[in-house]
Amino acid sequence: MERILATYRITAGESESRVRAEALAAEQSVEMPVAAIDDPRVLTEVLAQVRAIRPHAGDFEVVLAIAPETTGGEASQLANMLFGNCSLQPEVELVDVELPDGYQKAFPGPRFGIDGIRRLAGVEGRALTCTALKPQGTPVARLAELARTFALAGIDVVKDDHGIANQAYGPFAERVPAVQKAIHQANRETGGRTLYAPTFSGGPRALLDQAHIAKDCGVQLALVAPMLVGLPAFVELQVELDVPLVAHPAFAGAGRIAPPLLLGKLFRLLGADATIFPNHGGRFSYSKATCLGIAEAARKPWLGLRATLPVPAGGMTVERVPEMLAGYGKDSMLLIGGGLLSAKGKLLEKSREFVTAVRS
Amino acid sequence: MERILATYRITAGESESRVRAEALAAEQSVEMPVAAIDDPRVLTEVLAQVRAIRPHAGDFEVVLAIAPETTGGEASQLANMLFGNCSLQPEVELVDVELPDGYQKAFPGPRFGIDGIRRLAGVEGRALTCTALKPQGTPVARLAELARTFALAGIDVVKDDHGIANQAYGPFAERVPAVQKAIHQANRETGGRTLYAPTFSGGPRALLDQAHIAKDCGVQLALVAPMLVGLPAFVELQVELDVPLVAHPAFAGAGRIAPPLLLGKLFRLLGADATIFPNHGGRFSYSKATCLGIAEAARKPWLGLRATLPVPAGGMTVERVPEMLAGYGKDSMLLIGGGLLSAKGKLLEKSREFVTAVRS
Repeated sequence: MERILATYRITAGESESRVRAEALAAEQSVEMPVAAIDDPRVLTEVLAQVRAIRPHAGDFEVVLAIAPETTGGEASQLANMLFGNCSLQPEVELVDVELPDGYQKAFPGPRFGIDGIRRLAGVEGRALTCTALKPQGTPVARLAELARTFALAGIDVVKDDHGIANQAYGPFAERVPAVQKAIHQANRETGGRTLYAPTFSGGPRALLDQAHIAKDCGVQLALVAPMLVGLPAFVELQVELDVPLVAHPAFAGAGRIAPPLLLGKLFRLLGADATIFPNHGGRFSYSKATCLGIAEAARKPWLGLRATLPVPAGGMTVERVPEMLAGYGKDSMLLIGGGLLSAKGKLLEKSREFVTAVRS
Repeated sequence: MERILATYRITAGESESRVRAEALAAEQSVEMPVAAIDDPRVLTEVLAQVRAIRPHAGDFEVVLAIAPETTGGEASQLANMLFGNCSLQPEVELVDVELPDGYQKAFPGPRFGIDGIRRLAGVEGRALTCTALKPQGTPVARLAELARTFALAGIDVVKDDHGIANQAYGPFAERVPAVQKAIHQANRETGGRTLYAPTFSGGPRALLDQAHIAKDCGVQLALVAPMLVGLPAFVELQVELDVPLVAHPAFAGAGRIAPPLLLGKLFRLLGADATIFPNHGGRFSYSKATCLGIAEAARKPWLGLRATLPVPAGGMTVERVPEMLAGYGKDSMLLIGGGLLSAKGKLLEKSREFVTAVRS
């Protein structure tokens, strides 16, 4: 199989670029002095190779060719080979990764993708709408009431705030059936198909328990933060849960891994059917280019994997809907949380305004 | 219960410090405009509070008081509350965390700690020695031979290189029993007690399988990278594996979380009995102060938790042993990997040199 091509940006003078590139190749593969390796097979088949060195804005970029076999076809070891040790070197940034065709077969990729989410939500030819139940600490009955209001307004997806986890004041086992029931009831009244995406969190055992509870009450979507539960646990959750996974970026921005690569490509490879990211001009500082880069990485034809639905979010408002639609197009899901809840007593009206703005 | 106190450093002008601090408090708890919250219980019991704002080197530090209940007493949600969304804000760094007494009871903490590792290794009154099997891709028989040599030399702990995972060219199920057998055999010959720490990696199912294999062949130590397998999976692994856990920092350096906090305190809280970190003056750029800070966080009396063994590593050599011992003292484990393997044909002699340097 061809090699994995990983591009790193290194903040260092170009004069040392060759030495740094070779050191990085050793660090990310054999992790020992190359001169001390006798085994020719290790040198040719295991050691990463420097494929290119090119100047970039005063610093330089290095392309390493990493042997796919070294990743064991598994998420934690893939992350390790790409950015394990060099995550500890602040001058190194992981910019992009190209996978050889065939490599993706070891990973699930999106099981539903954009088309699958559209089918579940019964939405064709337009962007989807999404909102969040907030804040954590709100009694379960009130969360169910909020969910009902959003569903009556015709919002396509109602997700838990990602901070609503499995706290004593709203345990998953109590909260999720109650909220799902309220949404089912509203759907029956309106003939709509609003979907609920509860937050899955915790260790492998907790995730398994949550999967069973969710199945039992007919949950059709799941919200998970891959970097919080762990990349390989995210992959395994897909097996347990026969519903689309919405990836949340919490804990994912700390890394010096380019957001289009992590939130777009890698989450897609690992099975995210939708990916939430902080839109430009909100509470976060991602640039417009970064955000469009995430959307592109999520949707573009890539290794035959299904497309992942981009979900711009983070301090968005109904007023920005036209601009967001112009930027992301119809194969996206617009997420407005606090911007709706701020309407307080007029929540239903504000939610309908959001729905209308996206539909028209 | 008292609140969790989390200190953040924010790269922004002091004039905006109050506004930024309040915004951070909302972001890391209710994640919505505070003005839109009606529930007085949420405002008093769930919303994080700004406890202090103080200037720091041109920028400022903010201390947030986070309600312990919001973390659900669980690793992924603790990480979420501390650094979930604000990981996406590049101007925010997580500097330190103080936990209220009693909070730690939801977490395992080290089950063995320094004393437990000492008992297993039969080492009192001196620092421990550690080396690594490298490089990945080396045939299993050769890895077993290397392990035997290290054990004959009297090195206390032989760990897998963390890049030796579960690849096709050396599957865990084949490699670990073979290496453990070689070490057992060498121990019988020398009367020594060298311990083997294989790398555990992959998803929850794979970790469980590996735990069974390791138990069956008498493995007494485990190497795990918490940020690769996921923090909550790391916690659960402790339950499966009744042996000390050696935490590896791979994928952990990318975050803007202070290393003494993440590799020292948090890994300790989650159950690390030993913690590997890149020593200053090696291949990584951590300062001496950072490294001593990690060692201090790992060992100092804290909430009644057992002490975690600090393991400085990363390009160390036998020549540096006296200086490392002077810096870290006897409650540490010195890890030299490539520095021994570079001796090639004289590996046994070089390893003995290392052992002698630490013992004398």
